[in-house]
Amino acid sequence: MRHISKDSISQLEKVKRLNLINSCTGYKSANLIATKSVEGITNLAIFSSVTHLGSNPAMIGFILRPTTVPKGTYKNIKETGFFTVNHVTEKMIADAHHTSANYDADISEFSKTELREEYKPTITTPFVQESPVQIHCKYLNEYHIKENDTIHIIATIENLFFNENLQHEDGWLQLDKAKVVSINGQDGYCLPKLIHRFEYAKPNVETKPFSMMVHNKVNPPEKHYNLETPPRRKQNEQSSMVAK
Amino acid sequence: MRHISKDSISQLEKVKRLNLINSCTGYKSANLIATKSVEGITNLAIFSSVTHLGSNPAMIGFILRPTTVPKGTYKNIKETGFFTVNHVTEKMIADAHHTSANYDADISEFSKTELREEYKPTITTPFVQESPVQIHCKYLNEYHIKENDTIHIIATIENLFFNENLQHEDGWLQLDKAKVVSINGQDGYCLPKLIHRFEYAKPNVETKPFSMMVHNKVNPPEKHYNLETPPRRKQNEQSSMVAK
Repeated sequence: MRHISKDSISQLEKVKRLNLINSCTGYKSANLIATKSVEGITNLAIFSSVTHLGSNPAMIGFILRPTTVPKGTYKNIKETGFFTVNHVTEKMIADAHHTSANYDADISEFSKTELREEYKPTITTPFVQESPVQIHCKYLNEYHIKENDTIHIIATIENLFFNENLQHEDGWLQLDKAKVVSINGQDGYCLPKLIHRFEYAKPNVETKPFSMMVHNKVNPPEKHYNLETPPRRKQNEQSSMVAK
Repeated sequence: MRHISKDSISQLEKVKRLNLINSCTGYKSANLIATKSVEGITNLAIFSSVTHLGSNPAMIGFILRPTTVPKGTYKNIKETGFFTVNHVTEKMIADAHHTSANYDADISEFSKTELREEYKPTITTPFVQESPVQIHCKYLNEYHIKENDTIHIIATIENLFFNENLQHEDGWLQLDKAKVVSINGQDGYCLPKLIHRFEYAKPNVETKPFSMMVHNKVNPPEKHYNLETPPRRKQNEQSSMVAK
């Protein structure tokens, strides 16, 4: 294992530091945030910080750095109170990444890519037509993170649109069925494949994958995955632990 | 596309709502957060909300719901000021998921899984030995998100440890080389594969993938990915746009 301390990180050349620190927290979501200014100019920008905050009420959050790109997203959200979050699929990655280019505010990133604006009845904020999951969000609040001058935007999910082929009977959306991507660092676009879903974990009970036969919308796991469940407790434990 | 409104979401049966809303924001990072109480009892819990906040200083954030599981993580971080973030690989997913079981505070999740505590010189907080990326973090601050009573923990990266085989010359860690996983929803563990890295995006310039030959640590893309770059501007635009 290579070790790098806080001081050494701060002394790294800027691009190296950005690449290392952006990639060290793990895979991130790939979302296009679409907005519209009060003048009617649309804006589209790739974000990798959208996070689930809670389910009841359904809330999400994401991180903005208002002093840099993408300025338009923040301005439009503050003006209109709304934005949409749109998933990126494998086919969309080059266009999605291109939305991070620093276009002037009067130019819509939709006009510079093959991504198309889509409008839903009674909603004036654009969606990305190619996205298999589209979330219509309402700005609720923001928290200024004073430690590095970023803003944590908090929003409710007002309307959710998704390709019904992704959904399982228990509500879950299986994202790999639509080739939704995730991001590794600032610029690495990756295609995940489901390995397993696991049952709700209980103390001293082996944690097992769902039966693939019951959840018939899950494709059978590929052969190179080990279907046998490894023991989920130390091997030297008494098996009576399970019954406690 | 299926449409579900805010009101319909709130009326969903609880498990369906949790599954739908947890999966609708996209892929999430899979991280084991390890801590130790002042009494010396270790704690290990899976989190999917760790997010990059900034690179200089190197900062991360994650979301905690202190009134529910995992209580130990928050208590230990507040007591000691430190925690570690450890990546989950394909082999570790059943154990990683098992750490979400509701064990009593005097029982370490390390003792209930095959995951092993690892200690580094001068650091008393445990790491997960099996993890190819391990981050030693110091608590900086927290923001109470009053809209749903969650806490956004802000921390600095004090020390970063990683398998050197993952790193490219420009600092980037290629996570799929270590089979790091991402999470779809609450319980779906997925294995991503790199499609492409893209160059820094510039206005009116086609956004191209990095040359795979120059970045020799990137495995050649698999055959089923299209290596040809689609145009990154509308086809009816003048090519003179590029030169502007």
